[in-house]
Amino acid sequence: MDNPVIRTLLNHRSIRKFTDQKLSEDQIELLVKCAQAASTSSYTQSFSIIGIDDPALKKELRIISGDQPYVEANGGFFVFVADQYRNKKIGERSGIDTRVLDTTQRLTVALGDAAFAAQNMAVAAESMGLGICYIGSIQRDIERTAALLKLPDYTFPLFGLAVGYPDQEPEKKPRLPLKNIYHRNTYAAQLDDAALERYDQQVADYYHSRTGGRREETWTEQIANGLSTPPRLALKPFLEKQHLGRR
Amino acid sequence: MDNPVIRTLLNHRSIRKFTDQKLSEDQIELLVKCAQAASTSSYTQSFSIIGIDDPALKKELRIISGDQPYVEANGGFFVFVADQYRNKKIGERSGIDTRVLDTTQRLTVALGDAAFAAQNMAVAAESMGLGICYIGSIQRDIERTAALLKLPDYTFPLFGLAVGYPDQEPEKKPRLPLKNIYHRNTYAAQLDDAALERYDQQVADYYHSRTGGRREETWTEQIANGLSTPPRLALKPFLEKQHLGRR
Repeated sequence: MDNPVIRTLLNHRSIRKFTDQKLSEDQIELLVKCAQAASTSSYTQSFSIIGIDDPALKKELRIISGDQPYVEANGGFFVFVADQYRNKKIGERSGIDTRVLDTTQRLTVALGDAAFAAQNMAVAAESMGLGICYIGSIQRDIERTAALLKLPDYTFPLFGLAVGYPDQEPEKKPRLPLKNIYHRNTYAAQLDDAALERYDQQVADYYHSRTGGRREETWTEQIANGLSTPPRLALKPFLEKQHLGRR
Repeated sequence: MDNPVIRTLLNHRSIRKFTDQKLSEDQIELLVKCAQAASTSSYTQSFSIIGIDDPALKKELRIISGDQPYVEANGGFFVFVADQYRNKKIGERSGIDTRVLDTTQRLTVALGDAAFAAQNMAVAAESMGLGICYIGSIQRDIERTAALLKLPDYTFPLFGLAVGYPDQEPEKKPRLPLKNIYHRNTYAAQLDDAALERYDQQVADYYHSRTGGRREETWTEQIANGLSTPPRLALKPFLEKQHLGRR
């Protein structure tokens, strides 16, 4: 069952250092076409992609993201937006009541459409010898991100995708044992502790090798530590303001 | 820039009729591995996959979905779940305050992780000669879906993915013109009407050819008509009950 697609998928690692080479217009167009080819709920295509090449804008997004250099230094940067604004405009032209677009169900659909599209772009990029890194931290100041990109209501910026020619070769990060993420017919609320312990050791080894022994965090330690980061509470009021997920 | 991955991505069409052949355990394991290889926010892997092969359960899900036969008749059926329950359990064991998991930010992250994984599985499946169809309508009775799958709190079932050997060869559904979905640096609130009109004609032609002339809906008509479906309002209280997206 081995094939070039499976190999591309299994070979994924996030790239956080890119060469100076920019993506060509043709590459960008192909990436967007691949993104669009993904499934979309009820054919609504409830997402938009914003390609950022303005240096000042990239710098601003870098600052918002907590100063991650690869937000600015990459071959291309794309922001994926859950988008019900287009659908709203189309409905209004036909004189249709568009209130349904403010539901949590429609927000969920738009999030899915945007994420399917983004993952297709990521896979396409990697097949072309490019590397990618998702940037969720454009939401660290979501109001400012939305203002910079001039996002109208009924839209929600989800994450950025930095794309470019890799200037590093990181190791693959080990994933959870199958038993701890895959369930058969019903959810197994009990964790498989033996598998999880082995996994913890595998992750500690990964960090040890990657940092030359400076870091040896297990996966469960990382999860537990992540719970102590201050909650980012601006998203709910932002969505409310954008008329999304109101009911 | 053509390669087998790009070809697989651009060749996507949803399959709604499968042969009787079931996926093998090896195929399922590979599909899950490919799903897991996708990016995950802060390495949290905030999703679970539930593989459904119990016939009674598949039948129930078929009924919930509005009696779509391919929910029951397929090679394999997978439900993708946004999952903060695992992280919560891990946090509790370390005596960490896990309240951050009830934020909209953490819910968004889990939705993204689950959707990236699902799209990887979809692409992997198509590369193996299988077809796929997302089933968002398992949310039509989300309480019952969650009860059937015994989902604990901090989890949210997003969609099913029906996978199997295609027993039909549908045409590719045309996607929005680039200009109406791709923006440069800032969001273009103005629709490109000329491109949209050509697209509407293209979609009407697609339906005409697919239905032998019985249907000729344009894309904007379909969007407008979709706005009149009754809103599905159970998602917000369900999420609240699951301790997700509360703030």
